[in-house]
Amino acid sequence: MSLPRIAIDAMGGDEGVRVMIEGAALARRRHDRFKFLLVGDEDRIRAALEVHPNLRAASEILHAPDVVTGDEKPTQALRRAKTTSMGLAINAVKQGDAGAAVSAGNTGALMAMAKLALRTMPGIDRPALSALLPTLGDSDLVMLDLGANTECDERNLVQFAVMGAAYSRIATGRERPRVRLLNIGSEETKGTEDIQAAAAMLREAADKLSMAFDGFTEADKLGRGDVDVVVTDGFSGNIALKAVEGTARFVADLLRRSFASSLRSKFGFLISRPATELLKHHLDPNNHNGAVFLGLNGVVVKSHGSASALGVANAVALTARLLEENLTERIKADLARLGADNFRKSAKAAE
Amino acid sequence: MSLPRIAIDAMGGDEGVRVMIEGAALARRRHDRFKFLLVGDEDRIRAALEVHPNLRAASEILHAPDVVTGDEKPTQALRRAKTTSMGLAINAVKQGDAGAAVSAGNTGALMAMAKLALRTMPGIDRPALSALLPTLGDSDLVMLDLGANTECDERNLVQFAVMGAAYSRIATGRERPRVRLLNIGSEETKGTEDIQAAAAMLREAADKLSMAFDGFTEADKLGRGDVDVVVTDGFSGNIALKAVEGTARFVADLLRRSFASSLRSKFGFLISRPATELLKHHLDPNNHNGAVFLGLNGVVVKSHGSASALGVANAVALTARLLEENLTERIKADLARLGADNFRKSAKAAE
Repeated sequence: MSLPRIAIDAMGGDEGVRVMIEGAALARRRHDRFKFLLVGDEDRIRAALEVHPNLRAASEILHAPDVVTGDEKPTQALRRAKTTSMGLAINAVKQGDAGAAVSAGNTGALMAMAKLALRTMPGIDRPALSALLPTLGDSDLVMLDLGANTECDERNLVQFAVMGAAYSRIATGRERPRVRLLNIGSEETKGTEDIQAAAAMLREAADKLSMAFDGFTEADKLGRGDVDVVVTDGFSGNIALKAVEGTARFVADLLRRSFASSLRSKFGFLISRPATELLKHHLDPNNHNGAVFLGLNGVVVKSHGSASALGVANAVALTARLLEENLTERIKADLARLGADNFRKSAKAAE
Repeated sequence: MSLPRIAIDAMGGDEGVRVMIEGAALARRRHDRFKFLLVGDEDRIRAALEVHPNLRAASEILHAPDVVTGDEKPTQALRRAKTTSMGLAINAVKQGDAGAAVSAGNTGALMAMAKLALRTMPGIDRPALSALLPTLGDSDLVMLDLGANTECDERNLVQFAVMGAAYSRIATGRERPRVRLLNIGSEETKGTEDIQAAAAMLREAADKLSMAFDGFTEADKLGRGDVDVVVTDGFSGNIALKAVEGTARFVADLLRRSFASSLRSKFGFLISRPATELLKHHLDPNNHNGAVFLGLNGVVVKSHGSASALGVANAVALTARLLEENLTERIKADLARLGADNFRKSAKAAE
């Protein structure tokens, strides 16, 4: 089976066309089965493709006259879905012209457009934004929701767990991912009523879902590598993720200042370059680029606005992997196995 | 004016008496005006004091036959307030036998006991747990609530802002602290209704409160040093704080592994020791030990359960500073200036 092509919103992100095209070219150089639909300003895409003949040979261009801006409200962006590069990239997935879409543009707009065009899959009330976080263990951690839903009830959290486990099976190869709910303590009595109700539901359903539900985790234990999926509402998830990112950057800054503080330290730093490079590699968000909207009838991946070409290439490679491994179909099957209707708020939401 | 003495719960914390007494002795050595009421098992305290004659000379012992355990529920602990070291230390504050209490024991129990014995001050519906976080700027950041209140409405958040600003004036010396609400975006439309309502109230009241209200902050910007007080509900605050702590530890672990990965790196590490020591100093939680319960009629400080003697000494020094600077009275004055009744949920709560 050949891999469906990937629609790239070539206009999104802080640096726009150049980085997106360079990233796609880098991904294509690594995996020559990748094919692309490049969506955006045709002239600028053509110009950027001149130095990437390999990518040009594997791509079709879809002209979009318009661009979603970074500060645009989702409702505004929705009105321009038929003329913007983001809207047309998602529409290509809906029409079957592409298997998945990648964008580095406005997250709220991307979410709104993807939800409206692709709809949530049967058994899911709300899609969630998920990402992979580095750990000290053997494999990355899947965390969701990271900001798509400010407030979530227990059913949302259970659905996120099902989706996160399916993603983790693909990302880690582990058949029974270890799932936990993010909470402010590990004792059973901690947290909100919604979290406690979600824990009760997951405890009961974990076997049927082929996951190990291990209760709660606190935010200081995310990096230990003893859990595969961490489930939370979008508010807390966004705060936790950004606190992790900000602290990593904070420590890197401190480290730079410390090493620059004396000649002797500078010399030591140069000698230990391989060590600090390893650290930099592990902490560089480009190496974990690509947040996935789960729960939609189609794969949509958000590349970080400030990602480098390497970061974009990683997001593209992740997207291809999710297509190859049939993420969407596997989540649907899990929901069916669960008797998903027990966990739905209203039959309407998925129609 | 002489400094009121400080009640130390000598039995709390992972290592109990030895570390608490050593910490108090260290604080006493630095500041010879400190006086103590050491609360706990009299024999064990006496034994620990043998190597600290200076502390012994500045202390009275109050025997407590019982100890609050780490996994005890707050409701259970409350029933034993009259026999436990934690309960008797707080009671000493209530009776005026001590000006403040420091404990490294069970946080939930400490909160419940302190609230019941000392009551919330007029104008405050709920006390909050606050801590100082390191930044890349000139001064530390006051963050609250860190877990005392799982869910908070807009009035709670406004009250937290008033208390946090008072704390920040003492901690940073800045007369008009820069205050922000923690949110998942900086745009005005982001976040829950409670957060938006709190922002509207603070925008209006900021001048009267002698603070600069700068809107929202995201969790990746906590360490930048451009804000003095960050206000949030206890759930998000706990998650943000623990994510920061966990990531700092994660990076330190990575760094250790990186430097141990080759002989060359080890050599480089040794040479750059002064730099890594500086980093360690900045990241060591013992240097920021001491979380303060704000909003009570009295000063209660929580020392981290795993704090070293140095960490305990820092928590004790912080406690003394808050006494000297009349934190409690200053918060009361701010609330009165605000016309605090506008921000109270019920007159009952403060009685």
